[in-house]
Amino acid sequence: MGVSDKIYVGVPPLAPIRLECGKEISNIPVGVRHYGKLSTERDNAILICHAFSGDQYVGEQNPTTHRGPWWPMFVGSGKKRKDVVVDTDKYFVICSNVLGGCSGTFGPSTIDDETGKPIGANFPVITIADMVKVQKAVVEYFGISRLHSVIGGSMGGMQVLEWLRQYPDMVGSAMAIATSYHNSAQNVAFNAVAREAIMGDPNWCGGYYLDKGKFPAKGLALARKMAHITYMSPLSLAEKFGRNSISGDEVSFSLNCDFEIEKYLNHQGQSFTERFDPNSYIYISRAIDYFDLLRSGGGYLHRAFSRINSKPIFVASFSTDWLFPPYESGILASGLREAGADVTEAVYTSTKGHDAFLLDEPHFLAASRAFLKQVE
Amino acid sequence: MGVSDKIYVGVPPLAPIRLECGKEISNIPVGVRHYGKLSTERDNAILICHAFSGDQYVGEQNPTTHRGPWWPMFVGSGKKRKDVVVDTDKYFVICSNVLGGCSGTFGPSTIDDETGKPIGANFPVITIADMVKVQKAVVEYFGISRLHSVIGGSMGGMQVLEWLRQYPDMVGSAMAIATSYHNSAQNVAFNAVAREAIMGDPNWCGGYYLDKGKFPAKGLALARKMAHITYMSPLSLAEKFGRNSISGDEVSFSLNCDFEIEKYLNHQGQSFTERFDPNSYIYISRAIDYFDLLRSGGGYLHRAFSRINSKPIFVASFSTDWLFPPYESGILASGLREAGADVTEAVYTSTKGHDAFLLDEPHFLAASRAFLKQVE
Repeated sequence: MGVSDKIYVGVPPLAPIRLECGKEISNIPVGVRHYGKLSTERDNAILICHAFSGDQYVGEQNPTTHRGPWWPMFVGSGKKRKDVVVDTDKYFVICSNVLGGCSGTFGPSTIDDETGKPIGANFPVITIADMVKVQKAVVEYFGISRLHSVIGGSMGGMQVLEWLRQYPDMVGSAMAIATSYHNSAQNVAFNAVAREAIMGDPNWCGGYYLDKGKFPAKGLALARKMAHITYMSPLSLAEKFGRNSISGDEVSFSLNCDFEIEKYLNHQGQSFTERFDPNSYIYISRAIDYFDLLRSGGGYLHRAFSRINSKPIFVASFSTDWLFPPYESGILASGLREAGADVTEAVYTSTKGHDAFLLDEPHFLAASRAFLKQVE
Repeated sequence: MGVSDKIYVGVPPLAPIRLECGKEISNIPVGVRHYGKLSTERDNAILICHAFSGDQYVGEQNPTTHRGPWWPMFVGSGKKRKDVVVDTDKYFVICSNVLGGCSGTFGPSTIDDETGKPIGANFPVITIADMVKVQKAVVEYFGISRLHSVIGGSMGGMQVLEWLRQYPDMVGSAMAIATSYHNSAQNVAFNAVAREAIMGDPNWCGGYYLDKGKFPAKGLALARKMAHITYMSPLSLAEKFGRNSISGDEVSFSLNCDFEIEKYLNHQGQSFTERFDPNSYIYISRAIDYFDLLRSGGGYLHRAFSRINSKPIFVASFSTDWLFPPYESGILASGLREAGADVTEAVYTSTKGHDAFLLDEPHFLAASRAFLKQVE
């Protein structure tokens, strides 16, 4: 496959994909990357589910944004990096851009065949369950009936849990990292404010900015800055920036950027606008808001996993992650256990907050390797 | 005094007030309310310092906004409420709107005598130390040379600490509640994003919206909503709203307000725009950002309190307050102790997050009463 790999799913005569909102979509593009070789028995496939602002380039540079692989410590060639968790010399690794995304998969910036214009705010409201339905079609496209493992962190972890709920027979084992069984009220609140920042930007144009040659960059940057605070921890912010002034010891007594943390956030906001679609932010954050396995299980978490049997599941969280805190992972692990799963639950001490799952956390990485080796 | 009480400080021939940024201000209005009777010895005065969006109406309804007293459990007549902490039948209680505020005190919405227009973004950048200099002038206006106690929570607590640093001889005892010795990197980050929300609203007009008959209500509401999340706790949000939908059991699969927490935040944001000045938000949040007693003490917290002697100080925090978390109060208490103060440090278990200090927390209120009785 080339770098602009795209496959189409829900292609007639296959059935269309029915979304939770009731709408059906068919013949939709999905941005997909894969690494390694699928075995003759088609039993060595691992699906990696990306987080909110991620993409399919888990193990290589994104050719459009030129950003490096987003999970280099976790996925890669064991020949090149001996201690990688998912060795692409051994496993066939699939990663696809989520439904609603902006990296090749059907999303609000996709051109509508009928109108010739970007779909914009006409895009249907989607859910994590919908994202996973599309992923299932991708996995079937490769002729795979059972994944060796499904792995993801944050929103990727929510997808992992949806796989376990909807298609447990297609999953051999799973790793749900820095995630939760629902999006908490606090997280719903932060997402609502972020969306408001984008939708309040006059250049959002009711969601049809692409038609009008506009782009709500200020709103998107603002949303990202706020969200970025939640990805770190008070400790990591204190360690990295503290109260350091950009001009050395003195403060400027101005309303301008004066602290290093402000400069850092400005950079994060600005660079995000160069690689992410504002409507994708809106729709994907909304999908996260709607994620609630307690609701799916009719008020009982274990009922959301009724066909899980004794599947091995690794549930990992990080001590300073306040977006998806360890106590939520604890509730998740209990629910999975009650449903019968063989759960390994671990909390890792880290100063790095939610983003820890993407970073060099040796104990977490070692345990992930150990888990994957155990389920071989 | 009537309800629209205003006094003027820094009035010639008195010295002007020199701000930290270097500018001098004179003959400035201050919105002040007081309760109870000053004793003949002038030794029963207690200064209450308000928090970010507070005002001087600590013990009564604000006649303009019609909001009730903001600290009714803490300040009031002991005849009417037996268990009040600061009994206005016994103490002379002063509360003044902070410098930079929008409730009668010199701030960005004050009309400039020379131009006849609101000062707007021409207002100088101020600090917590500057706010306290103005308060000192207010206290002196009443002929008081020593306050029985200085009490405040959140940004009010920062003012208490500035009193202890700048004018310890004028303070008999102090209560610093739900506050810190500095504004953390995380808090600086949240304030930066909030200011950006306001300044990014096209109706902000570079800070001169009042001249132009505009008002950045959307930006101000957005800033407030985000900040409001930080005033609560994940637990209180889960308890109060959880993931409840406004339309009952079902979700709407829309981008509109769908969850109760969203509706609540919308209300908070909207009502805030009816009572607060956007530029005051900008200047006061900046003052909080600059607050750093470690810097004031040349890198040593105890040196910021070099003349504190064995003054009794009550340092209180709340378990789920993540804006000014208990561990920062712990560092503050250690610094005060090292400087020689007689510190009572207490952490109260509460689900209510930062706002707990304003709410009915019986153990906290009882301990506050006990402390004040002890220092009588």
